Amino acid sequence: MFLETHISKGLPLQKKFMSSNTAKETLTILTDIVLPSETNPIGNMFGGELLARMDRAASITARRHSRRIVVTASVNHVAFNKMIPVGSVVTIEAKVSRAFKTSMEVYMDVWIEDRESGIKSKANEAIYTFVAVDEMGTPVQVPDLIPESDLEKQRFAAALRRKQLSLVLAGKMKPKDATELKALFE
Amino acid sequence: MFLETHISKGLPLQKKFMSSNTAKETLTILTDIVLPSETNPIGNMFGGELLARMDRAASITARRHSRRIVVTASVNHVAFNKMIPVGSVVTIEAKVSRAFKTSMEVYMDVWIEDRESGIKSKANEAIYTFVAVDEMGTPVQVPDLIPESDLEKQRFAAALRRKQLSLVLAGKMKPKDATELKALFE
Amino acid sequence: MFLETHISKGLPLQKKFMSSNTAKETLTILTDIVLPSETNPIGNMFGGELLARMDRAASITARRHSRRIVVTASVNHVAFNKMIPVGSVVTIEAKVSRAFKTSMEVYMDVWIEDRESGIKSKANEAIYTFVAVDEMGTPVQVPDLIPESDLEKQRFAAALRRKQLSLVLAGKMKPKDATELKALFE
Amino acid sequence: MFLETHISKGLPLQKKFMSSNTAKETLTILTDIVLPSETNPIGNMFGGELLARMDRAASITARRHSRRIVVTASVNHVAFNKMIPVGSVVTIEAKVSRAFKTSMEVYMDVWIEDRESGIKSKANEAIYTFVAVDEMGTPVQVPDLIPESDLEKQRFAAALRRKQLSLVLAGKMKPKDATELKALFE
Amino acid sequence: MFLETHISKGLPLQKKFMSSNTAKETLTILTDIVLPSETNPIGNMFGGELLARMDRAASITARRHSRRIVVTASVNHVAFNKMIPVGSVVTIEAKVSRAFKTSMEVYMDVWIEDRESGIKSKANEAIYTFVAVDEMGTPVQVPDLIPESDLEKQRFAAALRRKQLSLVLAGKMKPKDATELKALFE
Amino acid sequence: MFLETHISKGLPLQKKFMSSNTAKETLTILTDIVLPSETNPIGNMFGGELLARMDRAASITARRHSRRIVVTASVNHVAFNKMIPVGSVVTIEAKVSRAFKTSMEVYMDVWIEDRESGIKSKANEAIYTFVAVDEMGTPVQVPDLIPESDLEKQRFAAALRRKQLSLVLAGKMKPKDATELKALFE
Repeated sequence: MFLETHISKGLPLQKKFMSSNTAKETLTILTDIVLPSETNPIGNMFGGELLARMDRAASITARRHSRRIVVTASVNHVAFNKMIPVGSVVTIEAKVSRAFKTSMEVYMDVWIEDRESGIKSKANEAIYTFVAVDEMGTPVQVPDLIPESDLEKQRFAAALRRKQLSLVLAGKMKPKDATELKALFE
Repeated sequence: MFLETHISKGLPLQKKFMSSNTAKETLTILTDIVLPSETNPIGNMFGGELLARMDRAASITARRHSRRIVVTASVNHVAFNKMIPVGSVVTIEAKVSRAFKTSMEVYMDVWIEDRESGIKSKANEAIYTFVAVDEMGTPVQVPDLIPESDLEKQRFAAALRRKQLSLVLAGKMKPKDATELKALFE
Repeated sequence: MFLETHISKGLPLQKKFMSSNTAKETLTILTDIVLPSETNPIGNMFGGELLARMDRAASITARRHSRRIVVTASVNHVAFNKMIPVGSVVTIEAKVSRAFKTSMEVYMDVWIEDRESGIKSKANEAIYTFVAVDEMGTPVQVPDLIPESDLEKQRFAAALRRKQLSLVLAGKMKPKDATELKALFE
Repeated sequence: MFLETHISKGLPLQKKFMSSNTAKETLTILTDIVLPSETNPIGNMFGGELLARMDRAASITARRHSRRIVVTASVNHVAFNKMIPVGSVVTIEAKVSRAFKTSMEVYMDVWIEDRESGIKSKANEAIYTFVAVDEMGTPVQVPDLIPESDLEKQRFAAALRRKQLSLVLAGKMKPKDATELKALFE
Repeated sequence: MFLETHISKGLPLQKKFMSSNTAKETLTILTDIVLPSETNPIGNMFGGELLARMDRAASITARRHSRRIVVTASVNHVAFNKMIPVGSVVTIEAKVSRAFKTSMEVYMDVWIEDRESGIKSKANEAIYTFVAVDEMGTPVQVPDLIPESDLEKQRFAAALRRKQLSLVLAGKMKPKDATELKALFE
Repeated sequence: MFLETHISKGLPLQKKFMSSNTAKETLTILTDIVLPSETNPIGNMFGGELLARMDRAASITARRHSRRIVVTASVNHVAFNKMIPVGSVVTIEAKVSRAFKTSMEVYMDVWIEDRESGIKSKANEAIYTFVAVDEMGTPVQVPDLIPESDLEKQRFAAALRRKQLSLVLAGKMKPKDATELKALFE
């Protein structure tokens, strides 16, 4: 059924023969420390440093799914809910949440853990979109992504609404045509 | 009239006595080169590196407006429309687009220029939100922001819709209560 | 039986009450890209850069096991069997292989993956030793480590021989007293 | 009259047809934060870090004027009059002060601003010289620079004396032939 | 006699005509400061950062001896005996201790010095092995290394035992065939 | 006679009891590689990167002489005579050339060496001035510097002229009072 959806959108037949991946198969984990050079005057990690790390983790995930060179296309709304002090261990878990024709949405969960208690807590979530390209920088088609868990399915569905929002904000789609998105406000 | 809006929202009186700034007064310009270490396998600037530079430029702007320590609260939708080759000169122009109670939206225009022709072209736009805090990390009030040019006024108005979108996405506001945002889809 | 071994070595009784961890519980995964700035003149990752990344991954693992500040005590023989080209995705998997009184041996497997085929191959293995310390830098006791899989048990056993080798090389143990190590040559 | 000076020095005629720039057109602004990793043991910015940032800003300015690849040829006397504490916002304003045959002198003013008062103060001035080169590294001719403001004209005039001083120090001009420079000491 | 040893191992005759170097001729000194960005939570230099610096110093030494591109082949046991506080001046002295067919063992002494007393103390020793390669990454022969001082001769002799240990640990030599190494345990 | 000069300038008597150093005792050698991230579009080392490395080497030398915290006070005319390609081995040799009351002039020779021939060639020379300070940043007195070789004596003498030039350029000394400097032009 998943493939049908795509075929109905007019994707070339060959897509059926690209090996699709489950979301889990695209998982990338980047665990690293917050160094003193990455902190602001009150000793917390710079937002910009986390944005850069997430870009690296997400690009690896998009590359694992597509087996292509990938370039960052957009960053969706990212909220920094928690200050992350110097010396923290930060874990970024990235998975492709949905593949479109040549682009992939990557969903990330960011965790920090307390050294003494060992307790992990959610620092924030982020969504980046990547495009697969060839050596000339021309976009190329990517395999389908198969969500399995409930959370993966939920993020897969929401990815379409986000894509519409992105097109609306870029002026490439009229708000009234963004069917899934519009439904949110009714 | 601008001040009335705020007063009607219940801001404490003292706010009237904080010196508000025009958008232009908060302008920060960060011009720098794309180094070889900041590029991907096809020789273009990593998205993550640009995100980090924009965070530094935007935080300086937010700090200039508030004269406080500022921390990144969120990043709005950022689209990377143009590949930026190694050796490019990248100019980030950041201005506060609207001040809320303790937060400020910073709007950035990013330009690259061709070395041979000298022509500047728009690479992308981005919007970050910062919160002003004291030494303990507690949010503190910020002055009002006064838009002057047409573009500044337009971004000032849109900032409110973006704030609503942000609250909706965070589950802190019901879509139907996001009046300004909802109007977009009607 | 595992605990007896330690008790017979004279560890204080309280050790029985520290919560020991399985090797698996200490697993740290650091997946990251090889940037152009981290390569030598023929385009492969500098050995020194990989040594530094492994130190960060291993220190996180030692910290997860001990819930203490940890400092690098030694690096065992590390062989670089494979050149790692720029743009490679490198995955470091680190687990505590054995805990001694105040020190922990961390065993790492390093993988690289081919972008086009997606095939992962082993780049090298490395062993680092960390000591847990308090804020003054004084060594403090760490919990026991429980190996479960066959590989974990094998590395756990070998860790003792390596410790003896380390003591012999440092002139702190006579070769003839290094019973387990000596057995290798008979 | 400005062009005559150059023609009298035997510059090829074609130079008249290169589009000269006003000093203002070459302005580059690099505003950035002092990160913790860029400071010495008493918490102030390393001189070397500021020297490197100024080199980047000045090279962009020289490139804007010449539309060529540029390489640093020399650094004139730079005095560090003010300590710049970690977290400071540092603004480098660079403009070409004079163009010679294939080289350009770039004059920089460096400002720091106080977060609380918002007051900007001059941290230091610096002068770098760049040479425009082609892809082979061979020097190529650059357009003339037109000073407009009083300060620009004053720096334009002094640039000639500095060039003479530079030639004298390098042993390429006899002190007694450095007419403009010598006049200083009479 | 030194050359005979090698010839007896079947090295091609041409080796006699490569210009061998004394250990002293390969000396590399890298003195640098410990920056705040290179320290752990208790303000001491990260082990990984020192490992990376030593790799750079050692690779320069191996390159000086071989006049070839060199790549890190292995790191022998390195012990970190001393904490190195931020702001310390660290001096790495690297010399080739023995040359084999295509590989070179580099022995390093690391010193730190106290700013107030000026006293230098030994921080640690380390041994790295490099292989000389051509532009294709194929190993190429290196000149002989001539030890002169007593310490150089002692390290030259021990290098053979270390090579055997390395081969044993890699499973490429049976412990009982590692004659020099085995002798240690008898 | 050297000491008399100082005493005649009114230095406090205690200076006689500070242990002066010979120029040679202050020697610092920093040998390191030019990494790909430190190069411009035509593959040569950025001037700014070399300026930063020289600052670190010179500051270590000034610190060795004074056994104090030192801060960069000024950079004298530095000429970049030679392009330094990526992968080069760069050696900076820094020695204090003259000590004044609280400041020290550091003279550096920068060498690069050809990998294949092993030939070292002079890349450039540079002169930095440092001031010794206490923890509060207040300048403190430094020991005398004793030049021994002919070159050291020549640089020692020239240092006084450079100091006068620096004072003249800063408007703190009238050109006609700069006796030693003026003599150059007569």
